[in-house]
Amino acid sequence: MSEHPLDPIFHPRAVAVIGVRSDPSGGMMGSFYDSLLESNFQEIGGLYPVNPKMDEIKGAKCYPSLLDTPDPVDHVISQVPASVVPDLVDQCVEKKVRSIHFFTAGFSETGDEKMAEVERDMIDKLRGAGIRAIGPNCMGLYVPSARLVFMSGFPMEPGNVFLLSQSGANAGEIIHGLMSRGIRFSKAISYGNGADLKAHDFLDYAAQDDETEVVAAYIEGVQDGRAFFDALKRCARIKPVVILKGGRTASGSHAAHSHTGSLAGAIEVFDAACRQAGAVRAETMDELHDLVVAASTNTRRVSGQGVALFGGGGGGFAVLSADAIDREGLTVPKMPKSAVDKMREYIPVAGSSVNNPIDAFPPEEHLEDMLRTVATAEGIDMVFMSPMTVRRPPPGARLSGPAQDPDPATTPEEARETARKGAAKAAEQMVKLEADTGTPVIGILRSSRMARMMGQDNDSISAAAYQAGIGLYPSVARAARTVAQVLEWKAYRAGLPDIFEGK
Amino acid sequence: MSEHPLDPIFHPRAVAVIGVRSDPSGGMMGSFYDSLLESNFQEIGGLYPVNPKMDEIKGAKCYPSLLDTPDPVDHVISQVPASVVPDLVDQCVEKKVRSIHFFTAGFSETGDEKMAEVERDMIDKLRGAGIRAIGPNCMGLYVPSARLVFMSGFPMEPGNVFLLSQSGANAGEIIHGLMSRGIRFSKAISYGNGADLKAHDFLDYAAQDDETEVVAAYIEGVQDGRAFFDALKRCARIKPVVILKGGRTASGSHAAHSHTGSLAGAIEVFDAACRQAGAVRAETMDELHDLVVAASTNTRRVSGQGVALFGGGGGGFAVLSADAIDREGLTVPKMPKSAVDKMREYIPVAGSSVNNPIDAFPPEEHLEDMLRTVATAEGIDMVFMSPMTVRRPPPGARLSGPAQDPDPATTPEEARETARKGAAKAAEQMVKLEADTGTPVIGILRSSRMARMMGQDNDSISAAAYQAGIGLYPSVARAARTVAQVLEWKAYRAGLPDIFEGK
Repeated sequence: MSEHPLDPIFHPRAVAVIGVRSDPSGGMMGSFYDSLLESNFQEIGGLYPVNPKMDEIKGAKCYPSLLDTPDPVDHVISQVPASVVPDLVDQCVEKKVRSIHFFTAGFSETGDEKMAEVERDMIDKLRGAGIRAIGPNCMGLYVPSARLVFMSGFPMEPGNVFLLSQSGANAGEIIHGLMSRGIRFSKAISYGNGADLKAHDFLDYAAQDDETEVVAAYIEGVQDGRAFFDALKRCARIKPVVILKGGRTASGSHAAHSHTGSLAGAIEVFDAACRQAGAVRAETMDELHDLVVAASTNTRRVSGQGVALFGGGGGGFAVLSADAIDREGLTVPKMPKSAVDKMREYIPVAGSSVNNPIDAFPPEEHLEDMLRTVATAEGIDMVFMSPMTVRRPPPGARLSGPAQDPDPATTPEEARETARKGAAKAAEQMVKLEADTGTPVIGILRSSRMARMMGQDNDSISAAAYQAGIGLYPSVARAARTVAQVLEWKAYRAGLPDIFEGK
Repeated sequence: MSEHPLDPIFHPRAVAVIGVRSDPSGGMMGSFYDSLLESNFQEIGGLYPVNPKMDEIKGAKCYPSLLDTPDPVDHVISQVPASVVPDLVDQCVEKKVRSIHFFTAGFSETGDEKMAEVERDMIDKLRGAGIRAIGPNCMGLYVPSARLVFMSGFPMEPGNVFLLSQSGANAGEIIHGLMSRGIRFSKAISYGNGADLKAHDFLDYAAQDDETEVVAAYIEGVQDGRAFFDALKRCARIKPVVILKGGRTASGSHAAHSHTGSLAGAIEVFDAACRQAGAVRAETMDELHDLVVAASTNTRRVSGQGVALFGGGGGGFAVLSADAIDREGLTVPKMPKSAVDKMREYIPVAGSSVNNPIDAFPPEEHLEDMLRTVATAEGIDMVFMSPMTVRRPPPGARLSGPAQDPDPATTPEEARETARKGAAKAAEQMVKLEADTGTPVIGILRSSRMARMMGQDNDSISAAAYQAGIGLYPSVARAARTVAQVLEWKAYRAGLPDIFEGK
């Protein structure tokens, strides 16, 4: 276990929620107490609701103030209005807490100079007492191993991705989005205005954290450019770091200023700094998701531009896919004559193509041979394939028509179990193909409608692919774009430690 | 009713399916007989399965050959292998059919000169007998009003969009994709190699077809450039035409050649021809869908670049949305001080922004006023909003956490009905806002997960928005891109008839 000064902050033993709500629409953002009940935080630590207007909440005693809580408290979550915060800060000092997370908004981000001063004063007072602050204007901590969550429904298994995000909503979107891709988190933090703890503190933490292998960041502005850049260099040198910068454009930058009080600075400087540090930049939320998947799976091992697309989706799909691959600067090399001849031994000429993209359903007994032929053909650096194309559709499957279970006699549970097994088998076949040929095999997700018709489901496919170390993307276009970005990322990391091998 | 020579071909009275299959996995492409049974074609016309190896199929008599069918047949669907096609062609001449659709593949697209010659010969013989051919290597006709379908599950209500597509799989994807956006079709045709009937025939038909208001096309290659361009000019002059060209890149063009035997030609020439004709080009399948939605809804009336984003999705969502809008060359003008002051009367400062993007939940009683304030502010040419942001989340709604029905006591049917009513009401509010202010209101779909948590569902929202004439897009980025393309499209149509007003 590492002994970083932020470690205790990521693992509090007793939490007080100040200004706790009993609003029936409490499931919205800011329902920290409910989320902590749901994650059973009390099983490993103390949980104290505080609100002077309530005697109890959900059967538990509610305390009138932080000072009335019976035991030591190391972490405080503030949901009180900004006007009450100075009092709360005094109580935190008196109670000797270790950290305070301000969900409370209405400080420097409002553009009101008086509130900016209140923010500075409270941070000064807290720092003077050795108390670290997260925020204000944010969602705070998600640490599965410490049963700490800021939205209900986050997975409780820990993973290897560390997330820092100024925005709470975007943190939620990243966590939910990557969760559905199979990814789990070591720690995530939404830090809003970053008045005390800032991006560089979290990057330094992530760099040395044994539980963290990949770092994702959503950043709107950097308050201390030098410290940020230095920390980014230290972290990105040894771990893959994927950064989405909000407020890249003039309009976005205005919005970021209203949101977290961030001043954007020149985007060219930011981009150059990322590149120099060896981090990769995502342009959109989708790209952030895809690049984190790439950094966590076999996609990071791709080393050339030649794609073999093993289709099964029809000729028109093959044409548009080839266009999408080409558009990203990758290539779709023609199969050599020897490979074509070999495949033509069992693939009929009519209604198929074996000339990359491969548009054919091979007979079961030739599938493995055909995949090897394609994966080892000259000029092929990776295979794109759908986990569904490894087999023919089951009897009765309807590739068009209303979505339906192929066999109406199966129960939903049986169907899910079949889907789970099918997905695991498909992922296994892809892993085997890669192991046998040394060619990375990249997964393409087809529509959930099509998956259902094949008796599969995309959640099972995503989970199985991630477990097997296979990068899986929602479309050929996104897979191609991700691979192109990874290749560029690798190129400008020349001279830095190799973070793309292994596993 | 118009009296175009192709009209009878789109409305056959008796269809024979030659080489009909009884394969249990018959739900795949090529299961024409099953699809026609499902659409109850027999209720309005004769349906004759033909296969010398079968006496009956699904309880109906199966005929040994086309010549054995008892009544006149005007349309033939060929599923026989290419080697048997010459015989079938002779039978078609003898039976005096009007049209034949060759699902059969294996002709010119194989690159085999002998098969290309077979293709030419059969077309010559058919033409000599006055028989028109669709294909070969395609899925043929979908005409809801004539109960003609080529995949099961297509909607049977007719609509106003005409689709021509060389690829059958892409035709299916376009029909299914647009169907989920609320759109329905007048006619759709997959015409493969286009050996006889070609794009220009269908464009001329669509131009004069009273049931067709918008035309969508997926084209891999043009055999007769002059005829195509002339027909495109005639059609695009008076109706919105959206074209997706497959095989734009070198890789895609190779794939297109293997798929439909298409020779791509210089893409710059194709693009210039589209532009000159006043058609709009989609770069991807998603863009095709979005542009057809735009041409069919209020999006076509947008006339400037200023976007007001009425958010409700969190500050980070607002920042990335502003970036996405700006990236497409649109603007996110700041709200004038008078508008800000007005909104601040009922929107608290902390945790909100009223400075565009608008990130706030207005109290119910101020919602209408707030929307009008935003829609009429200086510099605003359109409002982007989610049909979900017109109201606060219902009590108990959980914006995060596992997807679940807000009230577990409701049945799925009740939930759907509630969702349907909510969507209709939201669409109505958007229409009212546009009618009151003259500012187009564009819908943004949030994730289906979020919709479920708000007690809504995206299918209901899509259907309701389309019914109300509201353009609805899956993300801010796609809405912005679509609007930017529509503005450019309008600009280069200067001098051509206005096809963007009305309704």
